[in-house]
Amino acid sequence: MKTSKKSFMPLDIVSLKDESRVVIDFIADYYKNIEKYPVQSKVEPGYLSSMVPDSAPYSPDSLEDVLNDVNECILPGLTHWQSPSFFAYYQASSSNAGLLGEMLCSAFNVVGFNWISSPAATELECVVVDWMAKMLKLPSLFLFSGTGGGVIHGTTCEAVVCTLAAARDKALKELGGNWENITKLVVYASDQTHFTFQKAAKLVGIPPSNFRFLPTSFATEFAMSPELLRSAIEDDIRSGFVPLYICATVGTTSCGAVDPIADLGKVADEYKLWLHIDAAHAGNACICPEFRHFLDGVELASSLSMNPHKWFLTNMDCCCLWIKEPRFLIDSLSSNPEYLENDASNSNVVVDYKDWQITLSRRFRALKLWFVIRRHGVENLMQHIRSDVSLAKKFEALVTEDDRFEIVVPRRTVLVLFRLKPTHGLGGSELNRKLLDAINSSGEAFLTQGVVAGIYAIRCVVGATLTEECHVKDLWSLIQEKARILLLQYNP
Amino acid sequence: MKTSKKSFMPLDIVSLKDESRVVIDFIADYYKNIEKYPVQSKVEPGYLSSMVPDSAPYSPDSLEDVLNDVNECILPGLTHWQSPSFFAYYQASSSNAGLLGEMLCSAFNVVGFNWISSPAATELECVVVDWMAKMLKLPSLFLFSGTGGGVIHGTTCEAVVCTLAAARDKALKELGGNWENITKLVVYASDQTHFTFQKAAKLVGIPPSNFRFLPTSFATEFAMSPELLRSAIEDDIRSGFVPLYICATVGTTSCGAVDPIADLGKVADEYKLWLHIDAAHAGNACICPEFRHFLDGVELASSLSMNPHKWFLTNMDCCCLWIKEPRFLIDSLSSNPEYLENDASNSNVVVDYKDWQITLSRRFRALKLWFVIRRHGVENLMQHIRSDVSLAKKFEALVTEDDRFEIVVPRRTVLVLFRLKPTHGLGGSELNRKLLDAINSSGEAFLTQGVVAGIYAIRCVVGATLTEECHVKDLWSLIQEKARILLLQYNP
Repeated sequence: MKTSKKSFMPLDIVSLKDESRVVIDFIADYYKNIEKYPVQSKVEPGYLSSMVPDSAPYSPDSLEDVLNDVNECILPGLTHWQSPSFFAYYQASSSNAGLLGEMLCSAFNVVGFNWISSPAATELECVVVDWMAKMLKLPSLFLFSGTGGGVIHGTTCEAVVCTLAAARDKALKELGGNWENITKLVVYASDQTHFTFQKAAKLVGIPPSNFRFLPTSFATEFAMSPELLRSAIEDDIRSGFVPLYICATVGTTSCGAVDPIADLGKVADEYKLWLHIDAAHAGNACICPEFRHFLDGVELASSLSMNPHKWFLTNMDCCCLWIKEPRFLIDSLSSNPEYLENDASNSNVVVDYKDWQITLSRRFRALKLWFVIRRHGVENLMQHIRSDVSLAKKFEALVTEDDRFEIVVPRRTVLVLFRLKPTHGLGGSELNRKLLDAINSSGEAFLTQGVVAGIYAIRCVVGATLTEECHVKDLWSLIQEKARILLLQYNP
Repeated sequence: MKTSKKSFMPLDIVSLKDESRVVIDFIADYYKNIEKYPVQSKVEPGYLSSMVPDSAPYSPDSLEDVLNDVNECILPGLTHWQSPSFFAYYQASSSNAGLLGEMLCSAFNVVGFNWISSPAATELECVVVDWMAKMLKLPSLFLFSGTGGGVIHGTTCEAVVCTLAAARDKALKELGGNWENITKLVVYASDQTHFTFQKAAKLVGIPPSNFRFLPTSFATEFAMSPELLRSAIEDDIRSGFVPLYICATVGTTSCGAVDPIADLGKVADEYKLWLHIDAAHAGNACICPEFRHFLDGVELASSLSMNPHKWFLTNMDCCCLWIKEPRFLIDSLSSNPEYLENDASNSNVVVDYKDWQITLSRRFRALKLWFVIRRHGVENLMQHIRSDVSLAKKFEALVTEDDRFEIVVPRRTVLVLFRLKPTHGLGGSELNRKLLDAINSSGEAFLTQGVVAGIYAIRCVVGATLTEECHVKDLWSLIQEKARILLLQYNP
């Protein structure tokens, strides 16, 4: 940069070095002290409005002042996803490599909507989604080096909206191009499928009444039934509907169920439906040979998504979507206004990722995922998955050893669904709700719930980056102690 | 953190401090040398595949190795949006504050989909969108402290998809709940409106044939005509359609046109249409009183979006959306699965931002915008806008002084649309295409084109963070030199 004559220099190397050191020290202190904070924030709704001004400052505040306010106003209001005692939802794992990758992404601040707007952003993304596909042993049908391709979205929701739109537009075209047929299109999911599919189906204009929730049960460990799917499709065809899209899941949210991809794939193939596999969480484990069977039959799917921002040490946000026939995505989502026209796009030899997603602008997320994979290597990433699974096994064993508790659905990877057995005439729901409240209110750990077949259970997801065996043992002691106190109230 | 017994520590304070210093030094060097790179990348399609391995490394690579590869493989493939000689598209301005805010956001790595999942993420967002609304002097109809509310999306595209879905579902309900009416809904835009509206309308299931492009012309400086809008609405009503949504723009992409919000608002109000204002770029200028008139009539709109990641020194991504009646957004986008159930959401006194957007997971973008606003203050942010506008004025004056050139559409803020006048029997398109190619091929600057009323023109957007007067002067010298050489070919 030339020596500046400006008085206001918002991007300045000298102060950037100084300021970023202050912020990194702040971050290091945060991690050092993270176990001192209640895992789930204890603030009351509206807590912040009294702590901050109601309009923007006219003059600049110092970095010190802003960081003081982060300490005093923001930290108390955070639920600490990076705490080693965070066992809620599915984890948002992170790493030095993910953070550094984000820093570079932010610093370059390129907007790679088409190839020419930053070729490296597009080409590295193509490389990295192929790397990840190979780690998952996906068939070459899904790779750029094969006949398919992949893209990095922010979240599964985006991947689902885009694949639904692609499937929709393909079907409308096949039906003769009459848009009125949109009301005939039907989407299939199980009652365990993530709600985002239902939201996405409605978002792309498929009537909510055309969304089928196939029931699941303990008998199949809450996996979707290919027989019920076939029967629902047959019913819909008889009623004049057009079966469109199946959402299968590898690792559902409530209980970690794994849908039988190969058998669902056969049905999809027979009736020519789009089969999408949502492997947001458990898909991460599929880089290990012992979990790869979850994806058996994937060659029958049209698309597959998996979130490195969940369990792959990749800071938010990062969702890989692979698609067997990218042209359907592009047919649905592409537009080429004059102001973006360029020789590279005209040549048709480049990928323009704007045509693979909802939005035009996009961040250089591939850089982050590339950092994560290179800085850890497949070796350590597998060790990381196995270490979390091993801790989850230990937790499961602790639950099993205690007669007052039971495992509700068998563990697949790192989600342990358990509950206090109903006792003293108390329904399991009330009891376990109270237990969960007591655990979370302690501030020492944070877990959430899942409900399967009407049974309210507690979900323990082992896999925050900083979680070690001691935290799992502490969690179990906490649960036992809270259970003891709770049961004492009913049986003093 | 407790002393770790793990051999693999992906999140480790000691190495985080060391590694982040190395990366910050790398970033500082990048900015220091940024003028040495060709602004628009000169690589050929497919350049990267021969430079990187075709599968992930089994063992970790060192940070040094990865950064070396960034230097050798990535930098040559970047189009440098942060270069002071980047005048293409609309700028993606950035700042120390934006970068530091992103670092903290990444480090906390919280996922604030509902209030309880990180109260501070939600509450700071409510505070910051109100701050921004006040800076823009929006009526309290759009503020949480008034009767509306705002949300931070990644991009305008998301804001448009969500407001279209909200308008759609409101209309379908009013029409009796029959989803078949989706094929009757009509969206209005001008032929200058960003293509994202058309893509979004199709995405939410509105038939592409129901998207009306109202013609614009030089007579109104390419602003949308309220008369044509009214007449199109009347036509559609007569034909049995249901007019739904109007996209108005403050600062269009091709030429920076500003649609007459107040007059369009009256039409919207009369026919009960949803009026959305896309102020993605020029909206940033509206914090200065001298530009605020662009938004006159905003009280008649249903929603308004503006992108701080364009011109507000906020690193990607950040789009503020304000909405007068958030309940319509929530009615359309909300879902409450059992696994997310919690007391705070049940109480209905908190904002759950998952119901204000497409996706479930979301980054803590408010932290970044809060950093940007506080570290600069309204004072400097206004100065920043004015300084860019002043440079654009200077560039415009240079163009005007040279008889070979002409301004195509009058400048509104920082977009100068100009061209070489047709000469020697040469069409303006061919001439200016060649001129633009010559400029961009030099590597010394990067600009893009706009086409209005069939006229191909060159867009010069002044406003990359590092751009100073010298860069604008250098740009003009470059353009003059390339024009001289080009014209010489035709008139030797």
